[in-house]
Amino acid sequence: MDIMRVKGELVCTRRLPGLGSVSLRVLQSQSGALSVATDPVGAPIGKWVFTTSGSAARLAMNTSDVFTDLTICGLIDQWDQ
Amino acid sequence: MDIMRVKGELVCTRRLPGLGSVSLRVLQSQSGALSVATDPVGAPIGKWVFTTSGSAARLAMNTSDVFTDLTICGLIDQWDQ
Amino acid sequence: MDIMRVKGELVCTRRLPGLGSVSLRVLQSQSGALSVATDPVGAPIGKWVFTTSGSAARLAMNTSDVFTDLTICGLIDQWDQ
Amino acid sequence: MDIMRVKGELVCTRRLPGLGSVSLRVLQSQSGALSVATDPVGAPIGKWVFTTSGSAARLAMNTSDVFTDLTICGLIDQWDQ
Amino acid sequence: MDIMRVKGELVCTRRLPGLGSVSLRVLQSQSGALSVATDPVGAPIGKWVFTTSGSAARLAMNTSDVFTDLTICGLIDQWDQ
Repeated sequence: MDIMRVKGELVCTRRLPGLGSVSLRVLQSQSGALSVATDPVGAPIGKWVFTTSGSAARLAMNTSDVFTDLTICGLIDQWDQ
Repeated sequence: MDIMRVKGELVCTRRLPGLGSVSLRVLQSQSGALSVATDPVGAPIGKWVFTTSGSAARLAMNTSDVFTDLTICGLIDQWDQ
Repeated sequence: MDIMRVKGELVCTRRLPGLGSVSLRVLQSQSGALSVATDPVGAPIGKWVFTTSGSAARLAMNTSDVFTDLTICGLIDQWDQ
Repeated sequence: MDIMRVKGELVCTRRLPGLGSVSLRVLQSQSGALSVATDPVGAPIGKWVFTTSGSAARLAMNTSDVFTDLTICGLIDQWDQ
Repeated sequence: MDIMRVKGELVCTRRLPGLGSVSLRVLQSQSGALSVATDPVGAPIGKWVFTTSGSAARLAMNTSDVFTDLTICGLIDQWDQ
């Protein structure tokens, strides 16, 4: 699982039905790369989170038919990079 | 899920039957690397999109027998890299 | 499987139910990158361990419903990097 | 899916039974890294191809019991890197 | 599948039961990074091998309950890097 920081919300009006009502976050890795994750936790912008990837990302969602490959698992309380 | 930009269409006359009528796009990552994705969205050239990878890429297609490992999930409305 | 060193315990009060009582460790790769792993071994801080990733990480846990993508498999006795 | 160039055939007399009669190719990525792929297409040396990875690589083979993680999907007609 | 060189045997007295009697090898990639693989082939130290990763690594073992993510598939006869 990776350690990333929440950078913002993803704004996209046109997306596949399978991602319909899921909250999407833009995350930044420790090296600065950006990616998109589904967020069942409700992570605030600026917070450090840890994420799971691959098929585990789908298991971490409430419904199994969301085709995500990255999901936020929890907020990190204290983090000194 | 990754953030990429649509660079063009992939031209290939000889490919496996399992990819028969699927639309293929050449994408460019934020670091410049190129890859190929299946496109159920109809993404125009030059637009920023986000993609899902691995087994989720197959789930994101309408038919489950397409052996892709990267699929475009949606268009990003606004994106300031 | 990767070779990593245990850097500390992950402190997070708010996480998904599926990771409820699992012990989480912050690991450092040989190149210095940090990640988070589930730990069924009980690895002490500072020790070198090897880890399995992807769907194998879930199999390595006692219960199959933990949505981890990285699990510690064992302690390495001697390691001269 | 990735874009790679066929560099040669892999010569190995001793391999696992599960890869018995499959054609293996050495591929070179755009950054120069080498890897090995199963080839159901019959890709000539020097040609650019695109490949699928992970569990999709097994689906792309005719038989599902080949434990590959990289399979050539098709030849690219025109490619200006 | 990747091309790697066998660097040594992994010495670890304390590991999960699911990896009980499996032979483990330390491999070095072409870029120098080290990883650990299960070895059903019996690869000698110093030899170049090719490996399969992910769920395919488990299929390549005789028993399907070994939670490896990297398995040696065969020895490469001639290899001029």
